[in-house]
Amino acid sequence: MTVLGTAETFKRDWVDGFVTAYGREVRKVPDAYGVVATDVPKRGKVAVVIGGGCGHYPAFAGLVGHGLADGAVVGDVFTSPSAEQVHRTAREADGGAGVLFGYGNYQGDVLHFGLAARRLAAEGIDSRTILVTDDVASGPSEDPASRRGVAGDFFVFKVAGAAAERGDDLDGVHAAAVKANARTRTFGAAFGGCTLPGAAEPLFTVSDTDMELGLGIHGEPGVRTVGRLAATELADELVDGLLPELPSGDGRVAVLLNGLGRTKYEEMFVAYKRIHERLTAAGLDPVHIEVGEFVTSLDMAGVSLSAMVLDDELAALYAAPCSSPGYRSDGRPAAPVRPSVTVDDTLATPQHAGESTVDRALTAALRLIEANEDELGRLDAVAADGDHGLGMTRGMRAAVTAARRCTGPAEQLLAAGTAFADAAGGASGALYGVLLAETGAGLRGEITAETLADAVDNAAAAFTTLGKARPGDKTMLDAIEPFRTTLRAAVHGSAGRSDTGADIADAWRKAAQAATVAAQETADLVPGKGRAARLAERSKGHADPGATSFALLVTAVGDVLGGQN
Amino acid sequence: MTVLGTAETFKRDWVDGFVTAYGREVRKVPDAYGVVATDVPKRGKVAVVIGGGCGHYPAFAGLVGHGLADGAVVGDVFTSPSAEQVHRTAREADGGAGVLFGYGNYQGDVLHFGLAARRLAAEGIDSRTILVTDDVASGPSEDPASRRGVAGDFFVFKVAGAAAERGDDLDGVHAAAVKANARTRTFGAAFGGCTLPGAAEPLFTVSDTDMELGLGIHGEPGVRTVGRLAATELADELVDGLLPELPSGDGRVAVLLNGLGRTKYEEMFVAYKRIHERLTAAGLDPVHIEVGEFVTSLDMAGVSLSAMVLDDELAALYAAPCSSPGYRSDGRPAAPVRPSVTVDDTLATPQHAGESTVDRALTAALRLIEANEDELGRLDAVAADGDHGLGMTRGMRAAVTAARRCTGPAEQLLAAGTAFADAAGGASGALYGVLLAETGAGLRGEITAETLADAVDNAAAAFTTLGKARPGDKTMLDAIEPFRTTLRAAVHGSAGRSDTGADIADAWRKAAQAATVAAQETADLVPGKGRAARLAERSKGHADPGATSFALLVTAVGDVLGGQN
Repeated sequence: MTVLGTAETFKRDWVDGFVTAYGREVRKVPDAYGVVATDVPKRGKVAVVIGGGCGHYPAFAGLVGHGLADGAVVGDVFTSPSAEQVHRTAREADGGAGVLFGYGNYQGDVLHFGLAARRLAAEGIDSRTILVTDDVASGPSEDPASRRGVAGDFFVFKVAGAAAERGDDLDGVHAAAVKANARTRTFGAAFGGCTLPGAAEPLFTVSDTDMELGLGIHGEPGVRTVGRLAATELADELVDGLLPELPSGDGRVAVLLNGLGRTKYEEMFVAYKRIHERLTAAGLDPVHIEVGEFVTSLDMAGVSLSAMVLDDELAALYAAPCSSPGYRSDGRPAAPVRPSVTVDDTLATPQHAGESTVDRALTAALRLIEANEDELGRLDAVAADGDHGLGMTRGMRAAVTAARRCTGPAEQLLAAGTAFADAAGGASGALYGVLLAETGAGLRGEITAETLADAVDNAAAAFTTLGKARPGDKTMLDAIEPFRTTLRAAVHGSAGRSDTGADIADAWRKAAQAATVAAQETADLVPGKGRAARLAERSKGHADPGATSFALLVTAVGDVLGGQN
Repeated sequence: MTVLGTAETFKRDWVDGFVTAYGREVRKVPDAYGVVATDVPKRGKVAVVIGGGCGHYPAFAGLVGHGLADGAVVGDVFTSPSAEQVHRTAREADGGAGVLFGYGNYQGDVLHFGLAARRLAAEGIDSRTILVTDDVASGPSEDPASRRGVAGDFFVFKVAGAAAERGDDLDGVHAAAVKANARTRTFGAAFGGCTLPGAAEPLFTVSDTDMELGLGIHGEPGVRTVGRLAATELADELVDGLLPELPSGDGRVAVLLNGLGRTKYEEMFVAYKRIHERLTAAGLDPVHIEVGEFVTSLDMAGVSLSAMVLDDELAALYAAPCSSPGYRSDGRPAAPVRPSVTVDDTLATPQHAGESTVDRALTAALRLIEANEDELGRLDAVAADGDHGLGMTRGMRAAVTAARRCTGPAEQLLAAGTAFADAAGGASGALYGVLLAETGAGLRGEITAETLADAVDNAAAAFTTLGKARPGDKTMLDAIEPFRTTLRAAVHGSAGRSDTGADIADAWRKAAQAATVAAQETADLVPGKGRAARLAERSKGHADPGATSFALLVTAVGDVLGGQN
């Protein structure tokens, strides 16, 4: 849902805010919804004037600046600006060398820019027009004029701006822009609709279980609906949609992975990893890559992949330095490297239960944590970021794998603790790592109920020092403490009797039961997600699912010690 | 819902994609989830190493580059990186002059970066740490150490990076960063939750009717829930939350309006317009302004407002040139200008009905269009962008206002047509403008039923030429044509009788009924929003609500001619 801005004043207000924030580089065209670079008109320089409906920032106004556009005309959301607005903006930008108009191929823009061009001609101002037609999903390849302009706008405007900046005349700037458009293709996908400012409901929606391939930047229906794809599958769809449409060249391409608004940057990089593999496997050499938001669609969820087949001229023009509020380049082309060898992040699930008691105990703990991963996440989400379950699983898997690489309980638990902290990350990662490692540190000699209780005391003490928690804070410590004291008491209770494994198991399981009871106290939550519920839970101190995961861990270990696993 | 990436491999995959796309500037730390600038280690230069959980791009890895950070450690989503990862990245970045660690004040980061710092010290590598604590909502002003680091990270990292770049030693870089943090404050608001990669449901949600003030970048509960606010109201809340917390200075401030992920850029500019007014009214001088996405929270909807109180040193360091994948600056500080006088966009609703028949007819048409604005929008959304109702209302209001400024039907309709096209924009704006203007052009002399029919013929012809539509295309023309022919027939039918106003009204209303019948044929739609429904409707040619709005317009005019309005 759109929160800010009302439909009627939206355009005026955001343009005002834009020229205020970036007044160093852009100024408003008097009495018009247009912006120009602060230093226009530039005598004798071709003026590049771009535009279209708004809702696509940084396109179009954000691309006004040195080495890019001289001016941009701003229409209402997803609506062409009027001929009057185009005319005023072009007159303001014209430096006497004529105007190159650049915009996407939409009927409204064609009508209004066309009317403005005729009016300029009547006033003796020469102009040319480049209609961007990069969207392969919007028309057949035999009829490129039927295609819409989408993220490829950026390539074409950048090339035109650089050509004008280097002093080309109007025909020269036009020729460069025509070549850029002829060599640019885009294919996109959307997974969620967008909402117009002031509108009560989305302009359109995409089912939670679907993706729409080829959907237009104004929500124009796509060419194909598919189920939700993983990153690599989506990357393949984008590349497969683009490659057959690419004109031939010497292999060099500029690549743009464009976010439509709501798609997370990190997700785009996940997709780009695969895209790059596919492009290079197809013999292409991406010499200039951008991943980000260049031509957005309000808050639409989705991405588009654009490529421009380069020659020496286009490579030089595209890489030329520029500076605008929405895009700056220092002029150095990208020199991509292959991805580094990725880390062994020890995520492999153990193939089989290990031999030693520590192996079996850690594996049992991993299984129980895995079984409760979602619940731990829900508990964590009550007042924190909900990833405790994921972190615990990741940590325990790493712990199990690391323990396999050593022998002896002390060494195995030290390795497990370090690996856990490394894999789980976060505060709980560090704290669990300490618990495992310090327990291990206490088990160098013969293991008796007594030495085990000492080791647990030692680990609990280190935990308290590092975690700065006090009993009663309703943290993991409130499960550790009853575990520690119950274990100690049970061990004393068994004093005098032979110190058998059965005694150890019995004492441990009594302690685990105490930890479980304590954990239930702190974890007895309604998994509410609203602020009220989360604040209420937090005020009750019920924020730490660590108590629950600790209870699960020691319970699993107890089962192993008792021979039940 | 998150589409791309799975929880377990998300971090590895996006970092691989990132270093592949921006390999010119960054490379991966071997066997670690960290990135460093391609040219590190820089002998004798202090290494600035930042980091934290991921999900905040361009923070943190996107801020690695010349004049900014030398390295960034990448944790899992919203989770601190491990001490091991921090240690490996810092060793890779260290150029022998020591390491400045910069990160937000979160327990996990404090634990892991702290452990890494101790390990580096044991290896003879000196380090300092700056904990960013800019979030005023996360703790009391008496206890700044209790505060979290949010978007203010960017100010502090930029200053530290510039200080290291100019050659300050470790204590100097640390001192600059400490000063930047002490002078930086942030206050934010969220209107929608975010979803972790691979998670089935949002980490948290905010009610559609609420905003949460002071919500943390990981979804930590905010300090206050308010109803949805308009842009200016939200701007006031942000400014009111920030101003009392700002330390005193000479008035110069750097300002950052940061988007959390899903908030539209144009919406942020709407808010910034008001924010700037408030800041300057409070005697502050925003000498460097950025509006964009700097420290995001996956796809969270919301914004945060940050300010850093500048002195000469901070102003110079913050404005120093830098180049990283996520932020580039050519070193010229912003010199904001006040917003231009805004355009009179003729949105004022007429205060009273006008005097002339044209005034009354246009006013009546405006009223009927207003009453049907939502329905027209729904019809338009079936296969287009849903703004037809808004555009028609805006256009008719401008037409009514413009007509008021002239006298005589021809002049009034010409003015109304131009104003309509200007205000409504879009293809329909241009086409309606032509209809009004060309009808007026036909009414220069005495107005009879005959001359009116001629004028309508003339307008319809111009419309057809410009719109390139043919009868049967199911466009607005399919309502215009029956209107035109019915009017012509009715006028012939009245031939021989005295050409009274009653005859004109009668003929016009017959024609309007014909237009209404035709419009209902094209507008008989299920307002489906899914792709299937929209494609189906589009294939039926039911895409143009212009026929309906035309029928409404001529019906209202007919009522006026008939004296019913």
